[in-house]
Amino acid sequence: MTRFAFTLEFDGGPFMGLQRQAHGPSVQQCVEEAAETILGQSVIMHAAGRTDAGVHALGMRAHLDSPKPLSPFRFMEAMNARLKPAPIAVLDCVEVADDWHARFSCIGRAYQYRIANRRAPLTLERGRAWQVVRPLDAAAMHRAAQALVGKHDFTTFRSTQCQSASPLKTLDVIAVRREGETVLIETSARSFLHHQVRSMVGCLALVGLGHWPEGRIADALAARDRSALGHNAPPEGLYFVNAFYPK
Amino acid sequence: MTRFAFTLEFDGGPFMGLQRQAHGPSVQQCVEEAAETILGQSVIMHAAGRTDAGVHALGMRAHLDSPKPLSPFRFMEAMNARLKPAPIAVLDCVEVADDWHARFSCIGRAYQYRIANRRAPLTLERGRAWQVVRPLDAAAMHRAAQALVGKHDFTTFRSTQCQSASPLKTLDVIAVRREGETVLIETSARSFLHHQVRSMVGCLALVGLGHWPEGRIADALAARDRSALGHNAPPEGLYFVNAFYPK
Repeated sequence: MTRFAFTLEFDGGPFMGLQRQAHGPSVQQCVEEAAETILGQSVIMHAAGRTDAGVHALGMRAHLDSPKPLSPFRFMEAMNARLKPAPIAVLDCVEVADDWHARFSCIGRAYQYRIANRRAPLTLERGRAWQVVRPLDAAAMHRAAQALVGKHDFTTFRSTQCQSASPLKTLDVIAVRREGETVLIETSARSFLHHQVRSMVGCLALVGLGHWPEGRIADALAARDRSALGHNAPPEGLYFVNAFYPK
Repeated sequence: MTRFAFTLEFDGGPFMGLQRQAHGPSVQQCVEEAAETILGQSVIMHAAGRTDAGVHALGMRAHLDSPKPLSPFRFMEAMNARLKPAPIAVLDCVEVADDWHARFSCIGRAYQYRIANRRAPLTLERGRAWQVVRPLDAAAMHRAAQALVGKHDFTTFRSTQCQSASPLKTLDVIAVRREGETVLIETSARSFLHHQVRSMVGCLALVGLGHWPEGRIADALAARDRSALGHNAPPEGLYFVNAFYPK
């Protein structure tokens, strides 16, 4: 048996999410079906994160076990040939130890959220960013966001369907900056609760619009109550950027 | 009568091109039909450039005449509401003099060409860039491209269907640079021949791959012969970026 660790890039638009779903196409189903035609038997893919419907990935890490002694390069090439026309690509692939696990060995995850802050409807960025029409104050969003850094009970920013054992998470970085008409939010942590990034971004947008004073982010966090949440940002602006592992 | 000058952004993917075509949807048809529902009579849109099927625009300039005394802002808002779901947006709109013409008053045009220089199939950039699998030497492409700057007979880089009266054009700028796995080509001139940018990019890619020595760009130009053309780059990497007018 050979364990392959690989990096996936995908457009989340056509999928019900990363995880296999009974009611529609998923990234997991596409990857597993492609692998099965190569390996000749059923396989299970494990991924670093479980992204929602419409969420994209620039660098999702995953693994699966091959009963065949293929080279990682040949496996990647065969996967990319068989994944078409699904908008999923294997960017790299290496052989890893049998106890390496894309999800359980992961010690850090990085996300990016893109807001298209403009009045005109989106064309080339449609489905790739959240459009916010009124002007956002990215500097105010950045200042307000710093209250979220550190170890906190993130219940306010947690989906009611979150399956995490604890709402306690340590947020390492959250940074907001403007690049032209795009407002970019970058954040990383060992792990995130379900909907945590989208919930944080939604509240920060309220700060950016001037609807919330900057200090209300800290208040919402301290409330530990989902009803203190201002807004959940939509999935199409969210990108899983990277997963980190011990050397 | 009020003449509106406006900036269009569009995803060229679903269109047969900017100009109205008998055999499929065009940007012109979508814009004119949207304007007609607002203005209550048929209108003709004139644009700075006539982009091909699949070519995108970040800042195409155009104009049309309104028989109604609408404000430019109200016209823009109404257009954006009616253009949906077509991936076309009006980014700004101003009133101009009756003798201002988006095409004939234009004194400069700028294009960008995006090459995704990577092995893995495209997902989020599919239809938004030309994928070139083998490594490109962007510095060599840039050096070679400088032979194209200035006033030349660009017959080699001209479509057989080009309707320009003369193959003589003055290329002001062509610059090639790498940004990660993207190779960007930016070029501007008063005007371009049909397929000129795509033809130049196609030949420069042959230099970047090492198939052509750098000096062959100058040789191809000097040949003034379409058969000296190496390759025509595909439309999906091309973006009309800006049109320039006298102050």
